[in-house]
Amino acid sequence: MTARPQNVHQARLLRLLRDEGPRSRAELGDVVRLSRSKLAVELDRLVELGLVETAGLAASRGGRRSGIVRLSPRLRFVAFDIGATSIDVAVTNGELEVLGHVSEPCAVREGATVVLDRALDLLGKLRDQGLIPQVHGTGIGVPGPVSFRDGMPVAPPIMPGWDRFPVREAIGQELGCPVLVDNDVNIMALGELHAGLARSVDDFMLVKIGTGVGCGIVVGGAIYRGVSGSAGDIGHIRVDDDGPLCACGNTGCLEAYFSGAALARDATAEARAGRSPRLAALLESAGEITARDVAEAAAAGDPAAVALIRAGGRHVGQVLAGLVSFFNPGLVIIAGGVAGLGHTLLAEIRSVVYRRSLPLATGNLPIVLSELAGTAGVIGGARLISDHVFATA
Amino acid sequence: MTARPQNVHQARLLRLLRDEGPRSRAELGDVVRLSRSKLAVELDRLVELGLVETAGLAASRGGRRSGIVRLSPRLRFVAFDIGATSIDVAVTNGELEVLGHVSEPCAVREGATVVLDRALDLLGKLRDQGLIPQVHGTGIGVPGPVSFRDGMPVAPPIMPGWDRFPVREAIGQELGCPVLVDNDVNIMALGELHAGLARSVDDFMLVKIGTGVGCGIVVGGAIYRGVSGSAGDIGHIRVDDDGPLCACGNTGCLEAYFSGAALARDATAEARAGRSPRLAALLESAGEITARDVAEAAAAGDPAAVALIRAGGRHVGQVLAGLVSFFNPGLVIIAGGVAGLGHTLLAEIRSVVYRRSLPLATGNLPIVLSELAGTAGVIGGARLISDHVFATA
Repeated sequence: MTARPQNVHQARLLRLLRDEGPRSRAELGDVVRLSRSKLAVELDRLVELGLVETAGLAASRGGRRSGIVRLSPRLRFVAFDIGATSIDVAVTNGELEVLGHVSEPCAVREGATVVLDRALDLLGKLRDQGLIPQVHGTGIGVPGPVSFRDGMPVAPPIMPGWDRFPVREAIGQELGCPVLVDNDVNIMALGELHAGLARSVDDFMLVKIGTGVGCGIVVGGAIYRGVSGSAGDIGHIRVDDDGPLCACGNTGCLEAYFSGAALARDATAEARAGRSPRLAALLESAGEITARDVAEAAAAGDPAAVALIRAGGRHVGQVLAGLVSFFNPGLVIIAGGVAGLGHTLLAEIRSVVYRRSLPLATGNLPIVLSELAGTAGVIGGARLISDHVFATA
Repeated sequence: MTARPQNVHQARLLRLLRDEGPRSRAELGDVVRLSRSKLAVELDRLVELGLVETAGLAASRGGRRSGIVRLSPRLRFVAFDIGATSIDVAVTNGELEVLGHVSEPCAVREGATVVLDRALDLLGKLRDQGLIPQVHGTGIGVPGPVSFRDGMPVAPPIMPGWDRFPVREAIGQELGCPVLVDNDVNIMALGELHAGLARSVDDFMLVKIGTGVGCGIVVGGAIYRGVSGSAGDIGHIRVDDDGPLCACGNTGCLEAYFSGAALARDATAEARAGRSPRLAALLESAGEITARDVAEAAAAGDPAAVALIRAGGRHVGQVLAGLVSFFNPGLVIIAGGVAGLGHTLLAEIRSVVYRRSLPLATGNLPIVLSELAGTAGVIGGARLISDHVFATA
């Protein structure tokens, strides 16, 4: 059984050592405002629990040299980042540094049993490398709505076979550790909060543009999930009543205008209509066009591809402009596969948001591309479960 | 100087007595989880500070009868709710019950000095009635963006002469008590949280449709203001690029489609175009048509007026649908002068939100009209300042 801190002081010390790395007792005492003797009691208890260890002496600050304290180097958190078409498994130490990370294509629509077995297989590879003496907790992200409390997906549209599948319970039994399950966009936002551009930002939005479009919302340094866990599900916000028909049955939803799927659809239409010889050649040779192909065509200067990305950015911007006025965040991060479309997309999003949002809300608002690329999800998964393990039960 | 609690236990006791009314020592001990002797120490100190008093004995719960404790009946909070065209001043006791409330028309555009003098005059009337032995704190709402930290409006569009006027400082000096200043929609949301339909709801939105359109956002039982204090400023969210020109310079903003001002504009156009004999007669006799006139015409069955209100509700609903998908609140309250348009408006808003928001987000989502009518703002103003006074300094 994973040890947990026994009071708020211990929890605070663990999170501090996780986020700031090894610290001297003197430095820790300054931050947590405990007397030297009380601090020693709490640290001794954390050492007994196997969560913390002492590691030599710090340089003198004038008096006696203070002992260095760090998280146990045997601590391990595991993260599963399950996407629509891929699966990432990683293991981190207590400071959430990624020690091993494997990724492979995997269709989430193959169902919970198949996909989770694959995740456990991938974890086995990391185990075989000797990276995982013990698992202290596992954080899991899935590409759909999740009942966070119950640890299971609820009516997820692109995950047949997953509805109310007890993911937390199944993986918890398998690995014998605490497990939390959340939406993939939420764990990406946690990754950005821990190791990305949002490290010092309390209130921000992470917009993931991939197969679909979703948004992770952080308020006061914590994920905001809403009353039924669906907060940030922005893919079906209306851009225009007269827009394309959406899979949800409405017309003109953001995802119907722009997402990996919509981009592939529109690029195929451009190719068939003879408006892009490059895309037409791709369609001819591969039989299909993906969002990645459009990105490559745009990078090579194909005007039709650039126009599609610009139009997509404009529609994302129209929705984000309203959300920025409403939420007044300190940062907007654009991430996900389609964000690989890069600066053309970003420029268009920025242009619309800066023009259409309230000036007060955009005065100091950076809108940036994620710099964590493929690791935001797994770092966020580890952060999610470490927040739980490093809290009082 | 207003006394403040000296520790978190005292603060918790004060808020409990404010929200739940008089309680026996035994009941208080159960809630705050203090030993009988520690509770006695904290209560004694609150009595010394003049914030609390004892009031007889409770019925026996089996053993010795426990003493009843209540907030001092001499506690008074003052609230100024300054709207675009009206001013409300009220005084409450410590439990935030309104003891006196005066309201009169007043144009905020007359500037800070004129309007605040008027507010102080109105307060004088309440004082003359003997209602205010002492003021322990004042909460002020104004119809524009506010720097909450600085206690002043910042670049408020409809408040000429108020930009960076030190409202908190001016009123604090005048009344010799703590003062907080916030946006009028935020204090209405606090009023609903304290005494309205949101009493047991942690995360909700209050949408005020008056001269303009704004939204108060409550997250985890507290106002969410955003990083620059403009959160909830939804009046300029885009409904449609091809819509009417807005005062902000963009086209198709929500307020350009629907607000008290837009409704008066559209009703005047209907009257002039001969599409509503009733509105035409009103225009003829009064020289102008107000939103209230439209409400009355609709109530009397005027088809043009009903159509205007329906169209307005549809546009509000289109914006709210997106915000509900994003924020996933537990409740949406519609309030403000135009909300007096009542159930026709509400039905249209509901219809669009329930159709266009994510089903998960609307499954258990009530969308309701405020039941506090004109008192949400002043109760919220009192709540705002009492949260401050009943907290450790």
